[in-house]
Amino acid sequence: MAIPVETFHLSATSQGTLQARIQQMVAEGILAGRFRPGEKLPSTRGLAHHLGVSRITVTLAYTELLANDYLTSRGRSGYFVSENAPEPPDFGPLAPRRDQVDWDAAFAQRFSNGANLGMNKPLDWARFRFPFIYGQADPKLFDHANWRLCATQALGARDFMALTQDQYDQDDAELATFIARHTLPRRGIQAAPDEILITLGAQNALWLAAQILASRGRRVAIENPCYPALREILRQGGAQVTPVDVDQEGLPPDAVPRDTQVIFTTPSHQCPTSATLPRARREALLKRASQINALIVEDDYEFEMSFLKPPSPALKSLDEEGRVIYVGSFSKSLFPGLRLGYLVGSAPFIREARALRASMLRHPPGHVQRTAAYYLSLGHYDAQVRRMGRALGDRRKIMERAIAAHGLEIAGKGAHGGSSIWMQAPEGVDSRALAAQLHQDSVLIEPGTPFFAQNAPPTRFYRLGYSSIPSERIEEGIALIAAALAQGPQGG
Amino acid sequence: MAIPVETFHLSATSQGTLQARIQQMVAEGILAGRFRPGEKLPSTRGLAHHLGVSRITVTLAYTELLANDYLTSRGRSGYFVSENAPEPPDFGPLAPRRDQVDWDAAFAQRFSNGANLGMNKPLDWARFRFPFIYGQADPKLFDHANWRLCATQALGARDFMALTQDQYDQDDAELATFIARHTLPRRGIQAAPDEILITLGAQNALWLAAQILASRGRRVAIENPCYPALREILRQGGAQVTPVDVDQEGLPPDAVPRDTQVIFTTPSHQCPTSATLPRARREALLKRASQINALIVEDDYEFEMSFLKPPSPALKSLDEEGRVIYVGSFSKSLFPGLRLGYLVGSAPFIREARALRASMLRHPPGHVQRTAAYYLSLGHYDAQVRRMGRALGDRRKIMERAIAAHGLEIAGKGAHGGSSIWMQAPEGVDSRALAAQLHQDSVLIEPGTPFFAQNAPPTRFYRLGYSSIPSERIEEGIALIAAALAQGPQGG
Repeated sequence: MAIPVETFHLSATSQGTLQARIQQMVAEGILAGRFRPGEKLPSTRGLAHHLGVSRITVTLAYTELLANDYLTSRGRSGYFVSENAPEPPDFGPLAPRRDQVDWDAAFAQRFSNGANLGMNKPLDWARFRFPFIYGQADPKLFDHANWRLCATQALGARDFMALTQDQYDQDDAELATFIARHTLPRRGIQAAPDEILITLGAQNALWLAAQILASRGRRVAIENPCYPALREILRQGGAQVTPVDVDQEGLPPDAVPRDTQVIFTTPSHQCPTSATLPRARREALLKRASQINALIVEDDYEFEMSFLKPPSPALKSLDEEGRVIYVGSFSKSLFPGLRLGYLVGSAPFIREARALRASMLRHPPGHVQRTAAYYLSLGHYDAQVRRMGRALGDRRKIMERAIAAHGLEIAGKGAHGGSSIWMQAPEGVDSRALAAQLHQDSVLIEPGTPFFAQNAPPTRFYRLGYSSIPSERIEEGIALIAAALAQGPQGG
Repeated sequence: MAIPVETFHLSATSQGTLQARIQQMVAEGILAGRFRPGEKLPSTRGLAHHLGVSRITVTLAYTELLANDYLTSRGRSGYFVSENAPEPPDFGPLAPRRDQVDWDAAFAQRFSNGANLGMNKPLDWARFRFPFIYGQADPKLFDHANWRLCATQALGARDFMALTQDQYDQDDAELATFIARHTLPRRGIQAAPDEILITLGAQNALWLAAQILASRGRRVAIENPCYPALREILRQGGAQVTPVDVDQEGLPPDAVPRDTQVIFTTPSHQCPTSATLPRARREALLKRASQINALIVEDDYEFEMSFLKPPSPALKSLDEEGRVIYVGSFSKSLFPGLRLGYLVGSAPFIREARALRASMLRHPPGHVQRTAAYYLSLGHYDAQVRRMGRALGDRRKIMERAIAAHGLEIAGKGAHGGSSIWMQAPEGVDSRALAAQLHQDSVLIEPGTPFFAQNAPPTRFYRLGYSSIPSERIEEGIALIAAALAQGPQGG
């Protein structure tokens, strides 16, 4: 039986080359049981005509399907679905399902009822004309071509084991070595191999540190305002959390309560205010931790984005007593979808973190680690950080000029750089309402409310990221924010 | 100042093309501060001669370094380290460190003191001549070329967002859709998008399910013997675990204690005995779970490796009451370094799993998910499963013949296929000693002891995987095992 050519439609949403899409269309028809073994496919000419593509494209797709044993060819009589093609199993009709489970009783722990983790952030930010979004990659700044080359290299036969092997609890040796020899020394940190662990992004690093050191009733100090996902991690783990208000220089060491066991801090660029902890405060914070016998988890957040002044040395580099657990990430300087970060700390801590990581996921995918190792060791990473620094420096100047020109108010911006400015709207404005209103003008801003620990958080703050907005749109975007504020009211 | 050509050495361990290695050597010298801005590099001719490579290779490496602003060229006078090249920071001498932390007191939870998670498995298994190892990829069976094509496609400009974007708590839509439409129906499972979650491998799926349903004192039944990493996950989470002895047909439903709240089971191929749960037992197990109001976590382990008989329908496909949480994985059929798996369950459960995954790691790396989506949708995955099934079927025949010929004893092998045979040595043999002895003959076997829950586990069992050993070596490898056993003693 011949399969009528009319049954073939290229899906509008499918991606890849035309050849790949044709191949996919045929394979899916077979896998779904719509095309059965022995059935004849349309001729290459007929299908090409029907789809409006060249005949060679269809021929190449058919050839690939032949090689994979989906199709067979019988000389001049054409192409047929292979007898060896996979058949969808016939298990009969599905069992009708009426959920009989009392899920509330079934859950030993719940995780979904906390803060929203910023998870209501828009995934379609790239459609906005003025995306003052924070923490996404800019296609114009990321060195996609060299990343692709490194990824292709890491797909080669030489790296077959790095790609495919179950590494159990181990890291990619090339990446770990590069971080130890080159990345950490640039933060003034010297660490042995058993003091480093690769993680699934900084989020995973913070999570691991929190489980091991700051769960089950431990008394923990965090910054206020603070990265909301960290508060959620600590809540889930059952820590007793004390928020400590930050000022223009970040976390004030004296304000950390005496009975604190673990301090979470973001010295490079405080999240979200961008304040950089001055050297004197870094030393005071270490001293305070020593006095009260607390540990410090240092999220060395955006240190590479110090384009105005050189970065301060990491807290960890000043740590004489092994009290600091260091969290690093490639999400901001490479891209967040990469999901690569690392933990640095004393060997006993890393041993626990490695065991927990092994239990929860074994190890980050080998190919991702090896690609990053190549990208770093070939110098592309540093080149990119410098390129981003220059671009962000330019954008920041334009931001500051536009903000001043339109009379908006900066609440915090840090002295070293970063990729965002922390803003405050006039008293009485709710930045969530402001953000909703600006949506209509294709302007994306981030309301500041989720960063605060309080039950009745201040509502006037908002964050303007400039890591994804083109320079030439900044002025107009800021003008629209000013116009929306002038128009008012955005009362909460 | 000129940098003497003698300072340049291509590292013997570095990988990649010659050009890449030269580029890496220069970039690393600059990043490490050994080469300073303004210093002159050797001529391309001089460096080429020194390294014994062609001049064009050096020229291409220098050109790339120029583009990345590590080097500048001054017409005919040659190449210099760029003034814009990154400089290593000078933070002065490192703080001397004497660890002052009482780590035992600092840990809120410990994770490293449990079973070894099989983490003492050899990472250098590929050097063994007779690797009867389980769960690693075989370079000869994996379709590396098409994987590379799909990965390259997923690195393209069209997929830039899928690669780079922070997806917050979301999955790759292409992969999730393919699993829902094509993978699950082949197991008789119909699931809506909010009933599926992509995970970092099956390990991560089991871990998530355990935290949500089987932690904090919950009464849990597991199979005995059983995947050791699952026992460790349950121990870490604080479950009350009852091991239930399996027989030649897997888990006997009637032996599950009345007060069990969650049952973990591996119906497709029991781990490690390879037994397949017969259809009647599947129905009985569901009935038992319904009677005692328990949930079931089904690790649908190696279902694709059913090359002897068609796979039985998944427990989940027979589940009328929403009691079954289904764990799927691509680790065995693609490769374990990929770290991709998935959870299927009722929407309230998936909501919790998604929240916990977001908190611990956000989402699996975008590129890995998208590459798998292409590989699956182009039909390569099914082609590979069939190819592997044929090869494993052949190897299994050779295994069984050799085992019979040399008088070794099979303890369990299952009727459907799989990629290993569960063996028992004569009474009194300790398979750990046997494995150690066989190391010297370049034979790798897996002692069975870690699979057992008991404090004094049986020691005579061992597992022979045949997913990575070439057919032509099987006979000789089995002969060596028989010889070692004949030689004895390997008493414990």
